Amino acid sequence: MTALPADLISRFSAITGEKFALTDASAVAPYLVETRGIFHGTTPLVLRPGSVGEISEILKLATATDTAIVPQGGNTGHVAGQIPREGAADVVLSLSRLNRIRDVDPVGNVIVVDAGCVLADIQKAAEAAGRLFPLSLGSEGTCQIGGNLSSNAGGTAVLAYGNARQLCLGLEVVLPTGEVWDGLRRLKKDNTGYDLRDLFIGAEGTLGVITGAVMKLVPRPAGHEVAFAGLRSVADTLALFELASQRCGEALTGFELVPRIGIDFASRHIPGVRDPLQTRHDWYALIDVSTSVSDEAAREMIEALLADAIEKELVQDAVIAASGEQRRALWHMRESLSLAQRPEGGSIKHDVSVPVSSIPAFMAEADDAVTAVIPGARICAFGHMGDGNIHYNISQPVGADKQAFLDRWKDVSAVVHGIVLKFGGSISAEHGIGQLKRDELAEIRAPIEIDLMRRIKHAFDPAGIMNPGKVLQTGL
Amino acid sequence: MTALPADLISRFSAITGEKFALTDASAVAPYLVETRGIFHGTTPLVLRPGSVGEISEILKLATATDTAIVPQGGNTGHVAGQIPREGAADVVLSLSRLNRIRDVDPVGNVIVVDAGCVLADIQKAAEAAGRLFPLSLGSEGTCQIGGNLSSNAGGTAVLAYGNARQLCLGLEVVLPTGEVWDGLRRLKKDNTGYDLRDLFIGAEGTLGVITGAVMKLVPRPAGHEVAFAGLRSVADTLALFELASQRCGEALTGFELVPRIGIDFASRHIPGVRDPLQTRHDWYALIDVSTSVSDEAAREMIEALLADAIEKELVQDAVIAASGEQRRALWHMRESLSLAQRPEGGSIKHDVSVPVSSIPAFMAEADDAVTAVIPGARICAFGHMGDGNIHYNISQPVGADKQAFLDRWKDVSAVVHGIVLKFGGSISAEHGIGQLKRDELAEIRAPIEIDLMRRIKHAFDPAGIMNPGKVLQTGL
Repeated sequence: MTALPADLISRFSAITGEKFALTDASAVAPYLVETRGIFHGTTPLVLRPGSVGEISEILKLATATDTAIVPQGGNTGHVAGQIPREGAADVVLSLSRLNRIRDVDPVGNVIVVDAGCVLADIQKAAEAAGRLFPLSLGSEGTCQIGGNLSSNAGGTAVLAYGNARQLCLGLEVVLPTGEVWDGLRRLKKDNTGYDLRDLFIGAEGTLGVITGAVMKLVPRPAGHEVAFAGLRSVADTLALFELASQRCGEALTGFELVPRIGIDFASRHIPGVRDPLQTRHDWYALIDVSTSVSDEAAREMIEALLADAIEKELVQDAVIAASGEQRRALWHMRESLSLAQRPEGGSIKHDVSVPVSSIPAFMAEADDAVTAVIPGARICAFGHMGDGNIHYNISQPVGADKQAFLDRWKDVSAVVHGIVLKFGGSISAEHGIGQLKRDELAEIRAPIEIDLMRRIKHAFDPAGIMNPGKVLQTGL
Repeated sequence: MTALPADLISRFSAITGEKFALTDASAVAPYLVETRGIFHGTTPLVLRPGSVGEISEILKLATATDTAIVPQGGNTGHVAGQIPREGAADVVLSLSRLNRIRDVDPVGNVIVVDAGCVLADIQKAAEAAGRLFPLSLGSEGTCQIGGNLSSNAGGTAVLAYGNARQLCLGLEVVLPTGEVWDGLRRLKKDNTGYDLRDLFIGAEGTLGVITGAVMKLVPRPAGHEVAFAGLRSVADTLALFELASQRCGEALTGFELVPRIGIDFASRHIPGVRDPLQTRHDWYALIDVSTSVSDEAAREMIEALLADAIEKELVQDAVIAASGEQRRALWHMRESLSLAQRPEGGSIKHDVSVPVSSIPAFMAEADDAVTAVIPGARICAFGHMGDGNIHYNISQPVGADKQAFLDRWKDVSAVVHGIVLKFGGSISAEHGIGQLKRDELAEIRAPIEIDLMRRIKHAFDPAGIMNPGKVLQTGL
């Protein structure tokens, strides 16, 4: 247990009530582990406030006493932004009890939510009002909207609907001083001064605590269809994406790249998953189309696209889902790709993006470089091709020692990220910086950019209590 | 002429060359007048740099000598953000010579442009590459993308494609110190630290000078259709908008509200404009549909929508454009509404937004309040209904004294904006704050919000040289 004076623990606990102030090692343990098991946090205290007012009191006390605060939502982040530092006395501030849907306005197409609402619960509330809340990602049953906003989450529907940033109209934020900024606006257009909302989105809790949000809803599409196509190369898959964009326009709601090895892993390890096509192909595209017209219209659109692509010899073979169940099965296969890597041993993962037109060149160069560093490395690169966002994951060589492979994470990442940067790409497309990529960010960005971020951090949080050591290095 | 030491004028002029440093009263005059004629600027010097390097040198010198700099694009802004202060010694920095299209990537769907590129030129470059750059507004033949971004311009295609902010992927900005931030990223997804891009967008040149931008392109729609419908009320128009959103989804690319008086004004004063419908109606909707399929598909979609709306007794009468020429004529009528008010005398204008679902209630309350203040005032409220953005314009009573009417601008605005705020709306939906609404912003926003903006301003521009007196009050 790291040090925080007992009387200070008592003062914080008095704000939430003892029941919601956890100090017991077994009670705080779940707040200290992160999905990848790379970072291990420590904390003297987990606070579970029940209101914005309590959060305001907590931050006021934290600023007065120089106590570091780590906001935490569903604890599903991939870069340890939500985990307290190891060996420090960071207090964890859990948002889980702020889980009320405050309002749903189907005419205005907005939903107003507490930051601790689970993403799937917001999706359900939208559905009950006859609307779609399009943010969708693997952890949606656990992750919270406050975390989604703080990390600007992406997911599978970004192509058509945008990421968390683009789905947000307004925010409520408690500042480090305890002051509350009520920016819960429901407006599609509002040009009145600096864009504070977008500054808090993606700031990973380092500038304040998001406590509420106004999110956009959209009409539920009347028609939906999913196809799965086998192709020869990444370049052909890019050409298919262009053709799909041209033919389907805004109806193209998903375009995912899947490698052969991903199908092998998933059909080997994930119950119920099997290869959707009769013959083997090197690459696959999952194509998702939604229209405001009907399932028939979506199907016709996807059939015409595939017919054109087959005639152009882009697509070798393809299948169109025959039912809602088959559609879900195709998406399930895609979403299981990360999980399917686990039984294959160690995996070095990268969440990168490059300009869409550079994907084939990036992949070719990265594949060569990685297999030169680790011969036999099995590259399982998949993801949101339409967004230029590739999860460039690398499974260990067959029979290699897992830990020895994982020990080379930094070397391999340096190689991959170097090529990403050469193509003008991003080393974190949708997961954020957190602790995992903090030092690397400082290295790759121009000093003026890091300096501007530091100035913002200092202007908003001069005491440096908000999630220290995340995004930016401390003490510089 | 306001004061700036002659040697300082020489030093600034040496950076651009004398030819591009204007001091002559007749040469600088065009930079000092704004569209509405409310504000009259003064300046000792207009600089017309030809490169990012020259702008960097200018800002470095300005910071060193405490010289105020006012960036100016096409000088089409409606809130005098681009006009130097009256009686100060602000130097105008014209971006007009930075007008190069740097790159077009149709596969990646991006265009990279200098800040001084005229909007229409960017549209043309996109078209030449087989793509659409969807930002579109009345002044597109004159306004520049740097100004569009600095004011987060909206226009007629926001419903489907978003405003300038949503169309921007990356920026290049010269900071007050002369340092250049190269944020010209072409990425759809990039979660690496604070969102600097969105901070500069909409900052109206008060944090730095935008010199370049990466903007999104989209596939050109294959089909397009426009309809014009007559309705009984604003509430019916809102119901029609909901129906259109549901039936057309993302294919709904425009939904504009037009009042009867607007048709009267336009057909009276704008050559070639006539009432598109046989009978008179109190309200009208211009409906624009674009699809990736064909003109026929767009027409079928709009026909089915209107048939449904007529059966539901929402729409009284409607016409569908029979040709591209008729489509342009319908849009021309909509776009001439502001101009058509001029011959009717003085006009007090408001660029406001409210939640879409509140438009009917807002309009009813505002109409009552305004006509109570000025009996006989003719309210010509029109605009982007789908965005909740109404140009709530008020023409003077017939026969009233124009100046006496305009002298009541502040009284009337206070009434209208008060009702806007009651509905959670914005006093500037798409035009920005500039000088026109600066003091009002300080009054209506919570002190913490203004304080956060001030902290950002101070962090980026401690010397206060960047466009002082715009957005935020100075010297507080």
